[in-house]
Amino acid sequence: MKKVAVIMGSDSDWSVVKKAVATLKEYGVPVEVHVCSAHRTPGEAAEFAKNAKENGFGVIIAAAGMAAHLAGVLAAHTTLPVIGIPIQSAGLGGLDALLATVQMPSGIPVATVAVNGAANAAFLAIQMLALSDETLAAKLETNKEAMRAGVAEKDKRIAEEAAAM
Amino acid sequence: MKKVAVIMGSDSDWSVVKKAVATLKEYGVPVEVHVCSAHRTPGEAAEFAKNAKENGFGVIIAAAGMAAHLAGVLAAHTTLPVIGIPIQSAGLGGLDALLATVQMPSGIPVATVAVNGAANAAFLAIQMLALSDETLAAKLETNKEAMRAGVAEKDKRIAEEAAAM
Amino acid sequence: MKKVAVIMGSDSDWSVVKKAVATLKEYGVPVEVHVCSAHRTPGEAAEFAKNAKENGFGVIIAAAGMAAHLAGVLAAHTTLPVIGIPIQSAGLGGLDALLATVQMPSGIPVATVAVNGAANAAFLAIQMLALSDETLAAKLETNKEAMRAGVAEKDKRIAEEAAAM
Amino acid sequence: MKKVAVIMGSDSDWSVVKKAVATLKEYGVPVEVHVCSAHRTPGEAAEFAKNAKENGFGVIIAAAGMAAHLAGVLAAHTTLPVIGIPIQSAGLGGLDALLATVQMPSGIPVATVAVNGAANAAFLAIQMLALSDETLAAKLETNKEAMRAGVAEKDKRIAEEAAAM
Amino acid sequence: MKKVAVIMGSDSDWSVVKKAVATLKEYGVPVEVHVCSAHRTPGEAAEFAKNAKENGFGVIIAAAGMAAHLAGVLAAHTTLPVIGIPIQSAGLGGLDALLATVQMPSGIPVATVAVNGAANAAFLAIQMLALSDETLAAKLETNKEAMRAGVAEKDKRIAEEAAAM
Amino acid sequence: MKKVAVIMGSDSDWSVVKKAVATLKEYGVPVEVHVCSAHRTPGEAAEFAKNAKENGFGVIIAAAGMAAHLAGVLAAHTTLPVIGIPIQSAGLGGLDALLATVQMPSGIPVATVAVNGAANAAFLAIQMLALSDETLAAKLETNKEAMRAGVAEKDKRIAEEAAAM
Amino acid sequence: MKKVAVIMGSDSDWSVVKKAVATLKEYGVPVEVHVCSAHRTPGEAAEFAKNAKENGFGVIIAAAGMAAHLAGVLAAHTTLPVIGIPIQSAGLGGLDALLATVQMPSGIPVATVAVNGAANAAFLAIQMLALSDETLAAKLETNKEAMRAGVAEKDKRIAEEAAAM
Amino acid sequence: MKKVAVIMGSDSDWSVVKKAVATLKEYGVPVEVHVCSAHRTPGEAAEFAKNAKENGFGVIIAAAGMAAHLAGVLAAHTTLPVIGIPIQSAGLGGLDALLATVQMPSGIPVATVAVNGAANAAFLAIQMLALSDETLAAKLETNKEAMRAGVAEKDKRIAEEAAAM
Repeated sequence: MKKVAVIMGSDSDWSVVKKAVATLKEYGVPVEVHVCSAHRTPGEAAEFAKNAKENGFGVIIAAAGMAAHLAGVLAAHTTLPVIGIPIQSAGLGGLDALLATVQMPSGIPVATVAVNGAANAAFLAIQMLALSDETLAAKLETNKEAMRAGVAEKDKRIAEEAAAM
Repeated sequence: MKKVAVIMGSDSDWSVVKKAVATLKEYGVPVEVHVCSAHRTPGEAAEFAKNAKENGFGVIIAAAGMAAHLAGVLAAHTTLPVIGIPIQSAGLGGLDALLATVQMPSGIPVATVAVNGAANAAFLAIQMLALSDETLAAKLETNKEAMRAGVAEKDKRIAEEAAAM
Repeated sequence: MKKVAVIMGSDSDWSVVKKAVATLKEYGVPVEVHVCSAHRTPGEAAEFAKNAKENGFGVIIAAAGMAAHLAGVLAAHTTLPVIGIPIQSAGLGGLDALLATVQMPSGIPVATVAVNGAANAAFLAIQMLALSDETLAAKLETNKEAMRAGVAEKDKRIAEEAAAM
Repeated sequence: MKKVAVIMGSDSDWSVVKKAVATLKEYGVPVEVHVCSAHRTPGEAAEFAKNAKENGFGVIIAAAGMAAHLAGVLAAHTTLPVIGIPIQSAGLGGLDALLATVQMPSGIPVATVAVNGAANAAFLAIQMLALSDETLAAKLETNKEAMRAGVAEKDKRIAEEAAAM
Repeated sequence: MKKVAVIMGSDSDWSVVKKAVATLKEYGVPVEVHVCSAHRTPGEAAEFAKNAKENGFGVIIAAAGMAAHLAGVLAAHTTLPVIGIPIQSAGLGGLDALLATVQMPSGIPVATVAVNGAANAAFLAIQMLALSDETLAAKLETNKEAMRAGVAEKDKRIAEEAAAM
Repeated sequence: MKKVAVIMGSDSDWSVVKKAVATLKEYGVPVEVHVCSAHRTPGEAAEFAKNAKENGFGVIIAAAGMAAHLAGVLAAHTTLPVIGIPIQSAGLGGLDALLATVQMPSGIPVATVAVNGAANAAFLAIQMLALSDETLAAKLETNKEAMRAGVAEKDKRIAEEAAAM
Repeated sequence: MKKVAVIMGSDSDWSVVKKAVATLKEYGVPVEVHVCSAHRTPGEAAEFAKNAKENGFGVIIAAAGMAAHLAGVLAAHTTLPVIGIPIQSAGLGGLDALLATVQMPSGIPVATVAVNGAANAAFLAIQMLALSDETLAAKLETNKEAMRAGVAEKDKRIAEEAAAM
Repeated sequence: MKKVAVIMGSDSDWSVVKKAVATLKEYGVPVEVHVCSAHRTPGEAAEFAKNAKENGFGVIIAAAGMAAHLAGVLAAHTTLPVIGIPIQSAGLGGLDALLATVQMPSGIPVATVAVNGAANAAFLAIQMLALSDETLAAKLETNKEAMRAGVAEKDKRIAEEAAAM
């Protein structure tokens, strides 16, 4: 199976990004994690992206905050799909990172998920890999069922609590 | 090759969405286009998404404006990757559609592109299909080269114009 | 009397939504509470909305955060009035939920109240039911008087505190 | 049948508000239209709202732009449901009117629709009246069907146009 | 000397508004403080504003949060200058109150100060009264000098602290 | 009577600011108009403000766009009340000018009106002068009546137009 | 004298960027103009920045719209000062480009000017070069005088026009 | 070497601004620190800026929050480059200070860095001084290497932590 790279711009993003890694591991997707900055290690970022395909990666997930250029910079150097996670920081609430990640010019898309949406970045990567992997696709279906059941359970609990008010 | 579905919430989105269809056709990706509203034809939207995989689709592109629910509603009914194009409308400049498309809850991602970013939605879909299609991957590389050459040409023209000022 | 349904997209909304339920109960309005997600249990959401009228509901209140599609998805499947409560979440302060709830396309309105405005969702539902229920209407008038009196009391207390400064 | 009042803060809102009146008339709902300003004719606004119920009104629709106080001011003087239409004006794109309309304090809700969402204000009013009027309710169902058919038609046209590209 | 009225929409605004009252008292300006809501006690608000001039008031300060209508509603009923303090509340950070206070239509101005800018509301009121009261005007000049001296002192302290780094 | 100064940061603001001057002249208030920039002629701005009081001015109105510092810079040099008109410019819709005008620090208020709210700046200045000028106060009352009558006339016209639909 | 590089991300930015080039030429500053995209020609961008210093450049001006990464990407590869011009595009009014340009992480600053502020980017570059070039510094002083005189002239014209109203 | 002035509008900005001073000292750049308000000590601010060049300063860094006029006011009185640090304050998250700092009119630029971006203000000042100081330039190169090494180290640590999950 192709690997997923999870790159974050700063180690301070790790507490959020961890959820993406955990989700990928739950699905048995091989994952490699790096700290790599569009601005502090631009050469490394470019090299990583350029070689990602031949190094066996299928999807790149990039998380960054503020003027979040990481996902775009990686996308500039690869034709693999790049998923961007805008990281919330103080003050502007992540709006800066969201706009800096999603508003990419024509020809170099970044598949952007919600502010701090690390788990969804992983799910999106898995959906992409599942296009040619029926086992993964089946696991996604199972998860959809599990989510449904989880809601049903919460529904029951809250409905009872409400009835008792 | 798997097909790409391009769904728009209103026929008024067509002038923007057209660029996605044109790009997909340029890459020889089979595409099916529909107008289908999360709010006016929710049953059809749900049915389409539920059956998309077995009907031979690999990726769904959904474009909608304002309280843009279409991409999320389709994503709720499929495990295929869903790409969302927020459509700009009067007043709020597309910020409403962007937030309504990208801020999805955990487990149901929408791969969001820029406001009115129809071409990039197509490129992203092609990148996903190219994960298991080397011909498509090669075309993407060729396009990357072409973009580079296009910029070089513009660079020359503008540099000359500036020098002549 | 027709029932009011209070639906929330996630059990984490319950601490906010509780105020709506409490208010409805104070007015003696029969209420049924559910957790039901536009994205995780879309089928259940659709079914609930489709059958709501014949199941004796008069109004549906829907609370959701982020890309808050729940109210719109329910509204798509019913002609009952649907009231939307945008739930504040981290980062964007509820602006995402507000825009995703209120900016509905023509033909499928959602009656939107303030971010986290659960009590007002209940008052709005009661006002709708009171259109054909004079007892409820009278209770609303009484409440208006009570609010007035409450302000008068606070006015007295603060005016004294200010005078003593 | 109870009447619907459509009040606008300025005659410059009329081109937008007209759609609400047209929709109400299509449904055979008796409607009375006024220009009445929260700031220029506050006494008239208060009088209108205070007497609305006994004058045979069931719902009040209020449209205003900028610091849009009209809906809130009317709601302060009645227990009838008040629907607010935020009107877009230059510069801030209607965000000012939206926030000034929707962010009402507890106890005095305004059922807010989209910026310039006049038709939806009418639909919402009709849904409220339909709670005790099965003929209206049936018309709403018919309209829902018609919207569905309208989308199907547009779907066919656009799909063909896309296929021919 | 004419009195200044300080009106707040809710007693929860008192901790912010207190600074306005304290400032007015420091300047020896007679002040009357009230809790009075545009939505819960609209009649009282209208009455207060209508009679303010003949009751000896020269300026009205109004503080409110969210869809902050209070200043505008008072301004609708008086030709005295009305100063608005937008109060910050959770989520939207006071942007809602700011826009709802400042974006008044032509003919009914509200002199708006910063979000939570209670002290400045008082200073502005004093500046207005000082137009016909040279003693007050002199006090304002003295205060300007004192502010200047206060900054000079802080400048000295910080400059030393920085030098010692 | 004290004079009102109307200062604009750029002659491109004149088309908006003109309404303030026209309104002041209608009320017979002596007015002096200047172009004076906080950034291009800061010395002149400071001198003007410092001498404004002894030169017979009672109120200063300042209009500026973008990083609108003019009102604040004038307020720094005078204890006269300063009214700020944020001017809308391309792109950010006047939000930049609004925040740069209204968010003044404690001790130096700027009485801010709506984006492009030139007429209201004049009305506010007149209200301030009217505190010690009963003739002006009476004119403001007359104007309030005239506005009321104007709305009544528009109400009649629109109500008829609506009835004829 | 060191040269200034003016780089734009797209030839569509040229009509705005032209003002920077014109200003630099007026001051006799040698300037080189390029179209170079952070996303389409990332290698060229990196090479340009890496070699800029030894190629005789002193300052780099970078203009880009939407997710404006260009200035940041150039700054990542040089220790020369980089000035960023956020370019306004449809919909979000340049807020996206502004945040994507200015919110740089610690260690890699971008000196950001106003949205579409091309002339100011040039002035800022000239100010930097003038730190070690007294002739340039003198020209800047002369220009400051000229701006002052320009305002004085406009002041006279508008004051007369206002007096004649 | 020319000195850098670090001016803050209020001593409450010191905890943020301190990082700029520390960075400048690390690079051996002579620095002078002041508290000086555009509104409370405008004369001092103007004097400081007017004399900055002949007093041996090369760059001025100005930090201010809310309606942050300080950087612009200093820039109005000097042709030295002025760097603005927008300071975050409650409520609007620093968007007010950012817009009030960056949106300067043509001819008087402020080199704006990120909200609370004090360290980057220092780096930008050092980059400017390094244009004519090769020792400083070399230190900046060394720092760039150090940042790179710092990221590499973090990369190693996080990659291991991720592998062990």
